[in-house]
Amino acid sequence: MSGGAPQFAKLPKPPYYAVIFSALRTPGDGQNYGATAARMVELAQQQPGYLGIESTRGEDGFGITVSYWDSEAAILAWKQQLDHSEARRQGRERWYQHYELRVAKVERAYGMP
Amino acid sequence: MSGGAPQFAKLPKPPYYAVIFSALRTPGDGQNYGATAARMVELAQQQPGYLGIESTRGEDGFGITVSYWDSEAAILAWKQQLDHSEARRQGRERWYQHYELRVAKVERAYGMP
Repeated sequence: MSGGAPQFAKLPKPPYYAVIFSALRTPGDGQNYGATAARMVELAQQQPGYLGIESTRGEDGFGITVSYWDSEAAILAWKQQLDHSEARRQGRERWYQHYELRVAKVERAYGMP
Repeated sequence: MSGGAPQFAKLPKPPYYAVIFSALRTPGDGQNYGATAARMVELAQQQPGYLGIESTRGEDGFGITVSYWDSEAAILAWKQQLDHSEARRQGRERWYQHYELRVAKVERAYGMP
C-alpha cells in the first residue's frame, strides 16, 4: 500500500484497534496496484471509525500496513465496503504472493520523547 | 530493523501480544544501525515469550517492525533487557528522527487462503 498518507498516524489515546497487514507483493502489475492502493487509503479515510494508517514496503516487496480504527465494528464495515472487497479479491489473485492479517486491540502507546 | 529474520512470522493462534514499532531513520550511521538491529533480532529470539517478528523499511527511511509476544510480562522483560535498553538509547539519540510504539493484544488472525 503506502498511498500518499503521512508517515506517522496521529491517534487518540488508547484503547483503539489495529489491523496489521503484512504482505509480499508479486512482481509486476505495479501501476494498477499503486493506483488501487492509493484509492483504498482515500476510501479508508472516509470510513466511519477510521483513525489513521501507517504503511511501508521494502525493496524486497515485503510490506507492512497498519490501519487504526475506533472499534471492531468499524473494521468489519471497512472489510465489507464494496470497492475494498473488490481490491481485496485482486490482492489475493494478482498482487500478493502471501499475506497475513492480525486484528489487535491497542492497549498502550507512546512516542519518542 | 529487519535483521535477516524470515519475512512472515509463524505464530500460534491468538490471543497473543504485538509491539508495533514505526520509526523514521536519520540519514547515515547505517553500519552501526544495521549491526545493532540484527543483533537485537537475535537477542529478542532468545527472550522468553518471544513468538516472532516482521519488519520492513522503505527507501524513504520509514520502517515498521512488529514483534509478537505471548504476554505483557514478556514484553516488559524485553524492554528491560540490558543490551536492548542500550540499543533503545542509541535509537533515541542517533538513529531515529521519530518513532511511535503501540502495544496491542491480537484477538484474531488469518492468512491468505
